Amino acid sequence: IHSATLLHDDVVDESALRRGKKPANLIWGNSASILVGDFLFARAFNLMVETNSMEALGILSNASSVIAEGEVHQLAALRNLKMTEDDYMAVIKAKTAALFAAATEVAPVIADRPESERAALCDYGMKLGLAFQLVDDALDYGGLESALGKSVGDDFREGKMTLPVILAYQDAKSRGDETALTFWHKVIVAHKQDSGDLATATQYLQDADSLNATLDLARAHISRAKTAMEHFPN
Amino acid sequence: IHSATLLHDDVVDESALRRGKKPANLIWGNSASILVGDFLFARAFNLMVETNSMEALGILSNASSVIAEGEVHQLAALRNLKMTEDDYMAVIKAKTAALFAAATEVAPVIADRPESERAALCDYGMKLGLAFQLVDDALDYGGLESALGKSVGDDFREGKMTLPVILAYQDAKSRGDETALTFWHKVIVAHKQDSGDLATATQYLQDADSLNATLDLARAHISRAKTAMEHFPN
Repeated sequence: IHSATLLHDDVVDESALRRGKKPANLIWGNSASILVGDFLFARAFNLMVETNSMEALGILSNASSVIAEGEVHQLAALRNLKMTEDDYMAVIKAKTAALFAAATEVAPVIADRPESERAALCDYGMKLGLAFQLVDDALDYGGLESALGKSVGDDFREGKMTLPVILAYQDAKSRGDETALTFWHKVIVAHKQDSGDLATATQYLQDADSLNATLDLARAHISRAKTAMEHFPN
Repeated sequence: IHSATLLHDDVVDESALRRGKKPANLIWGNSASILVGDFLFARAFNLMVETNSMEALGILSNASSVIAEGEVHQLAALRNLKMTEDDYMAVIKAKTAALFAAATEVAPVIADRPESERAALCDYGMKLGLAFQLVDDALDYGGLESALGKSVGDDFREGKMTLPVILAYQDAKSRGDETALTFWHKVIVAHKQDSGDLATATQYLQDADSLNATLDLARAHISRAKTAMEHFPN
């Protein structure tokens, strides 16, 4: 399911790098990426039917709907400076964390473990997924392409309202910094980006300490994920 | 499932008309069509889980894989003049008829009817689906856009080897018609099409009587579909 969504994301996000390599759609075309993504998604459901667990199928088919809904929300929220931290958390919970949670929840379901273990593992996956996406979104402004295996600045170029940008924009508003507010409006809403704008954006993010705040929130979710695991013996 | 595949087909086929209207991707963009297609597909599986029939889920998830595989085969066979009638029948069985067959087969499965009724209805759907696609492919060269609700000549422009073209090309080969063979090579393999080429192709199809042969084969499958229904009381 994850590979299927990545093949479709490659087409939607128009990224130039995926896992350190050229994305499939730049090699074989958008059509192949769309159709092979569909194939992988369908095959995932075939394999699930083989488990013969209707409960597991329910969890994973539900997660698949939630992921797709999250992706559509994210698309609809592009270039919208009004997006809040709550909106953002709802999007990453749906588009990313729901699959982590479904993946960790089906294990105890298939192994026929008690409901409390199922709840603990669902919680664990959800928090882990939120932490993953928060770090991923911070790295889009701060990582090294060679270490990341994906392009830096993709979110910025798309006008995606990730938490680092939301926090920096709120910072500009609270300080009444008209220069910064005009900049964000130009690059996000009007979506007019010149060379050097990514560097300027990254500087605003650093001034607002919004990358550190994003990573701190990720650490908080990792800590909650660990707490969820305390339900199990060491 | 069908709507999901149509949203993706719109992006893959780059058609200008769908059910008499502008296709979704030309209004809301390719990204929206890809992601909303994924959403519909996932929702279809949610609804199937609600039936609580693992057998129905198996049939429909299997059909979904087969459809996607058929679409990939069709994509790989674009602009390939070596495609035979057998190859073509395998593609349309997978990309179209498999969903008709799954749709007609799940009804007796959910209603808990005997295996013989299930086989008869699966057979019925398969033959109906083959007939549908044969007619659809003939209409691409012969229909009226206003009546069809879709563009005429889309398959030709994509270099798709549908049965009418396969038969016309075989006719040119058996007659040793070098002019026709050079034409087909230019428009399909080299994929160089000039204005007037669709009209020329349609003329070759009429000379080879390949549209009528395609419609005759559709009628034969309709007849077999009716035979499959004889299993049931009037």
